[in-house]
Amino acid sequence: MLEKRTPIPVGEAVEKIMAYQKSGSIEYVSINDSFGRFLAEDLKATNDVPHFDRSPYDGFAVRSADTKEASMENPLEFEVVDHIGAGHVTSKQVGSFQAVRIMTGAQMPEECDAVVMLELAKAYERNGKNYMSIKRVYNPGDNVSFKGEDAKEGESLVKKGTRINPGIQAILATFGYAEVPVAQKPVIGLFATGTELLEVHEPLEPGKIRNSNAHMISAQIDRAGAEVIYFGKLPDEFDTCFNAVKEALEKVDMLITTGGVSVGDFDYLPAIYEKLQAEVLFNKVAMRPGSVTTVAQHEGKLLFGLSGNPSACYVGFELFARPIIRRMLFAEKPHLRKEKAELVADFPKANPFTRFVRTALNYSNGRLVAAPSGVDKSNIVMSLAGANSLMILPGGTRGYGKGDEVEVLLLEDHEGSEWPW
Amino acid sequence: MLEKRTPIPVGEAVEKIMAYQKSGSIEYVSINDSFGRFLAEDLKATNDVPHFDRSPYDGFAVRSADTKEASMENPLEFEVVDHIGAGHVTSKQVGSFQAVRIMTGAQMPEECDAVVMLELAKAYERNGKNYMSIKRVYNPGDNVSFKGEDAKEGESLVKKGTRINPGIQAILATFGYAEVPVAQKPVIGLFATGTELLEVHEPLEPGKIRNSNAHMISAQIDRAGAEVIYFGKLPDEFDTCFNAVKEALEKVDMLITTGGVSVGDFDYLPAIYEKLQAEVLFNKVAMRPGSVTTVAQHEGKLLFGLSGNPSACYVGFELFARPIIRRMLFAEKPHLRKEKAELVADFPKANPFTRFVRTALNYSNGRLVAAPSGVDKSNIVMSLAGANSLMILPGGTRGYGKGDEVEVLLLEDHEGSEWPW
Repeated sequence: MLEKRTPIPVGEAVEKIMAYQKSGSIEYVSINDSFGRFLAEDLKATNDVPHFDRSPYDGFAVRSADTKEASMENPLEFEVVDHIGAGHVTSKQVGSFQAVRIMTGAQMPEECDAVVMLELAKAYERNGKNYMSIKRVYNPGDNVSFKGEDAKEGESLVKKGTRINPGIQAILATFGYAEVPVAQKPVIGLFATGTELLEVHEPLEPGKIRNSNAHMISAQIDRAGAEVIYFGKLPDEFDTCFNAVKEALEKVDMLITTGGVSVGDFDYLPAIYEKLQAEVLFNKVAMRPGSVTTVAQHEGKLLFGLSGNPSACYVGFELFARPIIRRMLFAEKPHLRKEKAELVADFPKANPFTRFVRTALNYSNGRLVAAPSGVDKSNIVMSLAGANSLMILPGGTRGYGKGDEVEVLLLEDHEGSEWPW
Repeated sequence: MLEKRTPIPVGEAVEKIMAYQKSGSIEYVSINDSFGRFLAEDLKATNDVPHFDRSPYDGFAVRSADTKEASMENPLEFEVVDHIGAGHVTSKQVGSFQAVRIMTGAQMPEECDAVVMLELAKAYERNGKNYMSIKRVYNPGDNVSFKGEDAKEGESLVKKGTRINPGIQAILATFGYAEVPVAQKPVIGLFATGTELLEVHEPLEPGKIRNSNAHMISAQIDRAGAEVIYFGKLPDEFDTCFNAVKEALEKVDMLITTGGVSVGDFDYLPAIYEKLQAEVLFNKVAMRPGSVTTVAQHEGKLLFGLSGNPSACYVGFELFARPIIRRMLFAEKPHLRKEKAELVADFPKANPFTRFVRTALNYSNGRLVAAPSGVDKSNIVMSLAGANSLMILPGGTRGYGKGDEVEVLLLEDHEGSEWPW
């Protein structure tokens, strides 16, 4: 009954999966709905910014040539011929020793090439006319924001695959992207397996537990940027089960199942893969938790058979399914971001397998420090709550201790890494 | 016309605002919609986990007392009287030298107190009966996960105010929270002001720019965890404008306006505050950008008058409005999280005011390093795209340079800080 499985290294497993990566599709959403989505095209400047010479200050627009002789001893007087706010354009022609009172953001009068800041001018009225005087020289361009200074038309400002943040929202608005090209959310199908599983609203029964994996993975799928279709619990009967998987597969970009992949008498996912004539890419990985993770492909679509154990399930999703999702969101760095951190706990026991320890990463004086986020038995759901990262403890003959440098994979990050293995 | 304003330090400004903080309200949402929301109550274990003694491995449940004499030289035989999967409970009584084949997660038979891992037992059939034999001693509790080992009923597992992540979703499901108590999203009203503003779908006109602030702040409000009602552009006519603000104020928890707060002839927000009989808490802050930020309160509701300048607007929201929102989401640490980082750029020019520089924070060998995310003129929208933090450069007589330690405020973080000032 015991099938022999050969564990492969994590990197090799991910490589096998990435061979089936696909690029995503574009859809257009209103700018009001684009926050948090991923750009499907490079964001380009559709016009110069500013698209006219403008004043960055409240003050007076002048012709700099007129100011040449100004000094503390020789204040020069200018007639103020107009007063324009932002959004307005003067209709006056500005002659010599004339000025225009101008507000922050307003367009420079055509003849003017410098702005005198309000606090450096003395303004007054005489015979019903407005004047101001200055005591220093201005050079052409002083206090003027020139057309195209911030961005040139056609310039690429933000790369596709970037998650849209508030700053990018501002840029989208600036350039008139009322409809934003974003990556379509990949659709991920999800099945849970296990006769021990109760739904969240059901009361506990002897020997049974509530299905936490489906809710956890749904949130992980959401965090990764995709959409989940939860198909419920797989039925116990093989043929019904097979048909359910086959039908679901047609509706989704990839399919995730939790549980049913161990080498055990009651685990029938392998049999389903076989009947589907799916190609099993691997069914054992040299890692803890999650060693029984099985991934298969059927006509180019991936089937992720994650362990039913919550921690193994969590880790399996992040290492194996997330990069495929991120690729479909146009990410250049689809994998979890890897960084270095200082270990602040002891792991004295050696382990032949590479471990992924749920970790609460923190800062201490500008340094990343990593502590396990809870008791690290793989069936303990509690430690998942505080985890914002996974610590990688390579397998071998030694343990790890306080002060060691370790590598960590960030879970809440949107930068990613190109290839962390 | 020029009103004299006295700038106050940032910390003092925040303090004045926090005097009007309010606690949030609870609402219940389906567990399917709770990801990313904030817990409104401590999450408590509603039962022991596990709620029965269970086997963490595939193997054979035995009575440890029977194994006492087992050794390499003296293998002991057990009759296998039942075979149970997860979710099932044996109906058999397990007698001496009897065992039950048990799957991962299944409930221990009442008489058994140890599990022999599958690979350490030799299983065989004889005369239609199943047997297995072992070659070592087991102690009571070996390979058993005991009731309450992971969590005890009534134990507090996650604090209120915590943002719900995938791990917390798993915990919610485990404990039967089909409906989750989360913080109601505060409702934030938003007005833009400025005759220079075009809407995002409008073509450019001389002297006019598209309204980017409204879209930017809407996303910031979303990121902070609240909901926005965008009331559009404030009309130019004072009375219409006053009525619009007054009516909007009744529908929201707080009101944000962008623009219209400078000391300038066309800025009328101060006049509206006056007619409303709102108390102005401050109208100038010793900071760059955002010095003209004005905050007022009317019958306990806060009115945030942010600058029309995109950078000032962005910073003003994060420093002043976000903590009020986070308090309503039950955060104990409502302010932006403050950490230390190494500066990797030069800011040679001294500035009398504290600067908040839009920063792309990164890691280098496990250390936080801070570089400005773009040209740091306050009217340059582009640098907001790459900003994940704000660098604090205290005002004074010196500049800053590469290698200096600086403080940074994290923008994408959900931990926060209690009081960063």
